[in-house]
Amino acid sequence: MEFVTALVFIFIACACGIVWAIFNWMAVHKLEIHHKHEGLTELLQGAEQEKIETLLEIGEHIQDGAQAFLKEEYSDCSVFLAVMAVLLIFISPWSSLAFVLGAATSMLCGYLGMAIATAANYRTAFSAITSLANAFQMAYRGGCVMGFLLVSISLAILSLIIIIYNAIIVKSDDNNYEDLVRMFDYVAAYGLGGSTFALFGRVGGGIYTKAADVGADLVGKVEKNLPEDSPKNPATIADNVGDNVGDIAGMGADLFGSFAESTCAALVVSSTQLRVPSEGGYSIEIGQLMYPLMVSAFGIGICILVSAYAVYISKVNHINKIESTLKLQLLLSTIALSPIIIGIAYWALPADFVMIAADGSVQLADLKPYHAFICSLLGLWSGLLIGYFTEYMTSHSYTPVREVAKSCGTGAATNIIYGLALGYLSTIVPIIAIAVTALLSMKMLSFYGVALAALGMLSNLTIGLAIDAYGPISDNAGGIAEMSELGENVRESTDALDAAGNTTAAIGKGFAIGSAALVSLSLYGGYLTRIQTYKVGDEFPFSEGAKIDDPIIFAMLLIGAMLPYAFSAFTMKSVGKAALQMVEEVRRQLHEHPGIYAGTEEPDFRACIAISTKASLKEMIPPGLLVIVTPTAVGLLFGPQAVAGLLPGAFVSGVQMAISASNTGGAWDNAKKYIEAGFYRNDAGEVKKKGSDEHKAAVIGDTVGDPLKDTSGPSLNILIKLMAILSLVLAGAFCKTGWLYQG
Amino acid sequence: MEFVTALVFIFIACACGIVWAIFNWMAVHKLEIHHKHEGLTELLQGAEQEKIETLLEIGEHIQDGAQAFLKEEYSDCSVFLAVMAVLLIFISPWSSLAFVLGAATSMLCGYLGMAIATAANYRTAFSAITSLANAFQMAYRGGCVMGFLLVSISLAILSLIIIIYNAIIVKSDDNNYEDLVRMFDYVAAYGLGGSTFALFGRVGGGIYTKAADVGADLVGKVEKNLPEDSPKNPATIADNVGDNVGDIAGMGADLFGSFAESTCAALVVSSTQLRVPSEGGYSIEIGQLMYPLMVSAFGIGICILVSAYAVYISKVNHINKIESTLKLQLLLSTIALSPIIIGIAYWALPADFVMIAADGSVQLADLKPYHAFICSLLGLWSGLLIGYFTEYMTSHSYTPVREVAKSCGTGAATNIIYGLALGYLSTIVPIIAIAVTALLSMKMLSFYGVALAALGMLSNLTIGLAIDAYGPISDNAGGIAEMSELGENVRESTDALDAAGNTTAAIGKGFAIGSAALVSLSLYGGYLTRIQTYKVGDEFPFSEGAKIDDPIIFAMLLIGAMLPYAFSAFTMKSVGKAALQMVEEVRRQLHEHPGIYAGTEEPDFRACIAISTKASLKEMIPPGLLVIVTPTAVGLLFGPQAVAGLLPGAFVSGVQMAISASNTGGAWDNAKKYIEAGFYRNDAGEVKKKGSDEHKAAVIGDTVGDPLKDTSGPSLNILIKLMAILSLVLAGAFCKTGWLYQG
Repeated sequence: MEFVTALVFIFIACACGIVWAIFNWMAVHKLEIHHKHEGLTELLQGAEQEKIETLLEIGEHIQDGAQAFLKEEYSDCSVFLAVMAVLLIFISPWSSLAFVLGAATSMLCGYLGMAIATAANYRTAFSAITSLANAFQMAYRGGCVMGFLLVSISLAILSLIIIIYNAIIVKSDDNNYEDLVRMFDYVAAYGLGGSTFALFGRVGGGIYTKAADVGADLVGKVEKNLPEDSPKNPATIADNVGDNVGDIAGMGADLFGSFAESTCAALVVSSTQLRVPSEGGYSIEIGQLMYPLMVSAFGIGICILVSAYAVYISKVNHINKIESTLKLQLLLSTIALSPIIIGIAYWALPADFVMIAADGSVQLADLKPYHAFICSLLGLWSGLLIGYFTEYMTSHSYTPVREVAKSCGTGAATNIIYGLALGYLSTIVPIIAIAVTALLSMKMLSFYGVALAALGMLSNLTIGLAIDAYGPISDNAGGIAEMSELGENVRESTDALDAAGNTTAAIGKGFAIGSAALVSLSLYGGYLTRIQTYKVGDEFPFSEGAKIDDPIIFAMLLIGAMLPYAFSAFTMKSVGKAALQMVEEVRRQLHEHPGIYAGTEEPDFRACIAISTKASLKEMIPPGLLVIVTPTAVGLLFGPQAVAGLLPGAFVSGVQMAISASNTGGAWDNAKKYIEAGFYRNDAGEVKKKGSDEHKAAVIGDTVGDPLKDTSGPSLNILIKLMAILSLVLAGAFCKTGWLYQG
Repeated sequence: MEFVTALVFIFIACACGIVWAIFNWMAVHKLEIHHKHEGLTELLQGAEQEKIETLLEIGEHIQDGAQAFLKEEYSDCSVFLAVMAVLLIFISPWSSLAFVLGAATSMLCGYLGMAIATAANYRTAFSAITSLANAFQMAYRGGCVMGFLLVSISLAILSLIIIIYNAIIVKSDDNNYEDLVRMFDYVAAYGLGGSTFALFGRVGGGIYTKAADVGADLVGKVEKNLPEDSPKNPATIADNVGDNVGDIAGMGADLFGSFAESTCAALVVSSTQLRVPSEGGYSIEIGQLMYPLMVSAFGIGICILVSAYAVYISKVNHINKIESTLKLQLLLSTIALSPIIIGIAYWALPADFVMIAADGSVQLADLKPYHAFICSLLGLWSGLLIGYFTEYMTSHSYTPVREVAKSCGTGAATNIIYGLALGYLSTIVPIIAIAVTALLSMKMLSFYGVALAALGMLSNLTIGLAIDAYGPISDNAGGIAEMSELGENVRESTDALDAAGNTTAAIGKGFAIGSAALVSLSLYGGYLTRIQTYKVGDEFPFSEGAKIDDPIIFAMLLIGAMLPYAFSAFTMKSVGKAALQMVEEVRRQLHEHPGIYAGTEEPDFRACIAISTKASLKEMIPPGLLVIVTPTAVGLLFGPQAVAGLLPGAFVSGVQMAISASNTGGAWDNAKKYIEAGFYRNDAGEVKKKGSDEHKAAVIGDTVGDPLKDTSGPSLNILIKLMAILSLVLAGAFCKTGWLYQG
């Protein structure tokens, strides 16, 4: 395929994606809620009018809180990112530039996502007054804006960088492809920039949201018996702000990182290894490397059609239809993309190609386009499998969560034991899916195959993001409905939307972890390729590869496997500490101002927002440094082989922890919801709901699960990805140093 | 060193160890408590006499319960072991024989340990009536019997096997050492036998003890506000039986496995790789391989002296002296063994030797005895470091546990969050210690160095076992004192003994995990050596070693890392399920017989014992099969390379989980004890003890920690060791199969 042809299609797809996002953006904003608005009075009885004012106020507070946090977070991170950008100039000014652009894209997408989420949340609550279908549409449109903007913008910027770098850096046209390889090395820093910012976004956002959530629960639900999102609880606004900064901005940054990194990994590996047999030997042209970007581009197109189906055709007029509609989105996009991916492979890839090894010999011969599309399809379908299995393990429609709910009958301790066991057990299927995908794609196309699998899994990322972002928007809508004390039927609708959102959030997390695993494996492949092709004089000192029985590799494998534990310890303690501060503030307010509990006085929610903001910005530093400093220090001190052990260690251990933490937390949350919904009966057949001992035990599990599923678990994705891409970018530096240890 | 000289020293040491054990055994049994005994009335006021009867009765019940369980466990396991023994005949009848002997040794040692512990427990409680020093001596002597019997018997039997196999199998005396290598291959099945039985001992015992403990706590402490070990609680006897079958017999089997396996690993690796430069090339004699056994033999000698110091010289006449005396034992034996190990190295090892690679070339040249003793000392001292660090993380004398206790102020949820974080954090130091030890010993002597490090860590195993077994003996003594309602001052003494036992138990667990890590690494080395020397015709198809970027190795690395999660899920759910049955039984008894709670009726503790016995024997099967079937199936289906990835995956992930699970549980237990001891003050400065909300939160943590620290955590040791030795024994079979996958 010609480079230009590919670019035309890519930019058309990005443009369509952006237009579709703007269109939905406008559709969301079209619903103007003014308490003085004429149309409003028709919809509402007079008495309700005041509640709408409260709704608008709360919506505004959440918006302000989220914006204020992002502003502070962005300015704090900018300092750090600037330092890293300056240091990267020593690697290459081009790397530094790509790094800055990656970080900026990530920030922009996070900001836009937050903006639409905080616009859609109260509108969803408001729409629930009129009908469930309207509310669903509002929340899902909000999710679509986030999903399509993020993927389209990042694909467009990445393509632009490739065009410009290609024009400036790749001058030679002979058979020595060093320029091309070097160029994509620089481009890889785009992924590094995205992931570095994502680290702080995920960790900071995760600490913010869970400090508020845990703090609010500990005093509100456990001590004072207030319902969730009670307007009397000073921490509830912070809790709702947290959903936006953690689950929207943080999660967006995370998945943007996955997308950018897997594309970069595919480009780095393929520019080094993919060659087409030609007369004088083997050749390669940049257009022949565009297959992965084409898959993403067509992914946008297909997802527009699929999401339009949800918005226009499927009518969510009953609670039972919510979850199935969302799950159908994932299934439809997966099915629709399968033949497209096959077609693109034959169109964009050379009909016949090989992968060459570090020494120039042919490593894999006789490769055809079908090798590539099998890898992509493996990724795409194992993503769906992981998503659906995650749903099975975390939704209270199935046995596993019901067992956990049942264990609440003997108290909080058995609930915790069963929940932990469920999380551990839930690693089996995703890990086997990832392992099989990795095995087959490495067999077929080495690490290029793994990168293609990652991109296959991410090819319907827009839909993944849309249904994922739908979750916190609905969660917020529920909170806002509760706080503005809208009618029972409204809250029933928003609760149902929220419950479905919990499940899609769990699916989204499974997706994020699965793709992170494949992404970091492909980045690791890129890293190994780099250190194996590193030449000192006429020799390749690291050509042997990474042997497990090499002492430094084994030792670092062990230390790498420890890092997710240290990282989780840091983040969980951070949440614990911040939550304790929050508890003290809430207790102080309720104690000093008894009017709050009586409902005659407004709580000072700004003080709670300030605590979450300050604590999260401070507490994200130690885990952040752990992730960035460890591989850098290990590489500089112990050389490239050490890092070749550190990365897979962190990888194999981190993936398990991430899956089990996310699913344990999700299961506890839904076990609690199962009891709250009145489905739980004890041995004597009595229904036990809110206020029962069983419910209290379930709340304890849910509170423990909060930092697991929303802070430490998802942050581990970033740990494994960021360590890998950082090592890839610094590989050259490691080969020159290794001050303390020489193989 | 001549083979005969080595044997003389080894058997003298074993004889001394056994004599010292018997001597202590007799000292324990010398204290005959008969309620009709004349001497007794002098010691006691008349009213107390009846309590002694109760004490004797309870002691007998515990003894009966433990014996009954072991009998059932042994007969169930025998069937399984017999099947494995028959299958092993296909590998070699010699392997099968060694396997049977290993399993039998493990059973014998477990039985003897249980016998002395159930004899010492009530005598310790009784001795506490006279003085703390007497009680301490009784408990510690009991521990010594266990420690010295186990190490001496197993070293003696192993040496006997070597003598006999050597005489029968090693016929040739030329420079082709295939016979010697083959002989030690057969001997390795001794370790496999020990470890296979240990699996069931640890898992079955762990489920037994925690089902009883959790069940007793859930109804007794949480629902009915009964104190620990209340005679009104029907499950307390089962709980005390559990300490003996889990913490004594199970733990003994575990550490016997470590000891046997690391010795076998050292012998397998050294017979294959260690060679002495001689005129016609390189040679080796069996006597030159005896260094590891000599270290163990002299370890017994030194430990006799050190333990005699504790028994005769140090006077534990004050509560403060208990913990320091026990910790001093470890320190003294470590210090005393250091010069001895150096001496043995120069005496037993050739002055100059090399390690040869699979292809016969020299892998490491110019090796001297100091390379060997550095490895041993690294192991010895890192064991001490791990032990002391574990104490720091789990004793309530230091900040970490106090922080966890403080977090109980905001409820059970924060307690759980802080406890989990503490466990994760506590992996850092032990992992770095193990990684550094592995790195340096692999650098110096390849996997032989790792085996020496493991044996160095285990060289003071007798003391380690003695202070470890001291724990459950004291725990039982406390329970018996409570149940027979002995005076306040007696219970104060036994509580203090028990509290120190908690700490030494934690140290022992750190020790067991550290040694298991090094043992399985050395076994893995043995496995790699085997598959690399496997020859098909004139080729070595697996000579390349284990490269991380080999697709099957990477995929299996990932799946291996998942196994500890699956295994923990199985064992934790087993405990949960069995505990629920126990809860129902206890509730039923208390409900149907109100006289029990009133104190007028005896509870039916036999029903509770039956539940624990039945549940543990049934529930140990799935986790047991997981450990045995997985590596076997992977090896047979996917070949030796697949297992070369599976083992390190399980290793790096399992070690972390084992450490964090043990320490989290230990910390929760001691945080609870900290509150019970009245050290905890809330923000207002009030002391909160038993019955407070803080204490209830702490009890929930403790209950969650029970299966983590006593079932899943320690069983993971066996998982990583057993998978490695099983693969080592089956390596030849894997090389011939690999039905589904060819590299």
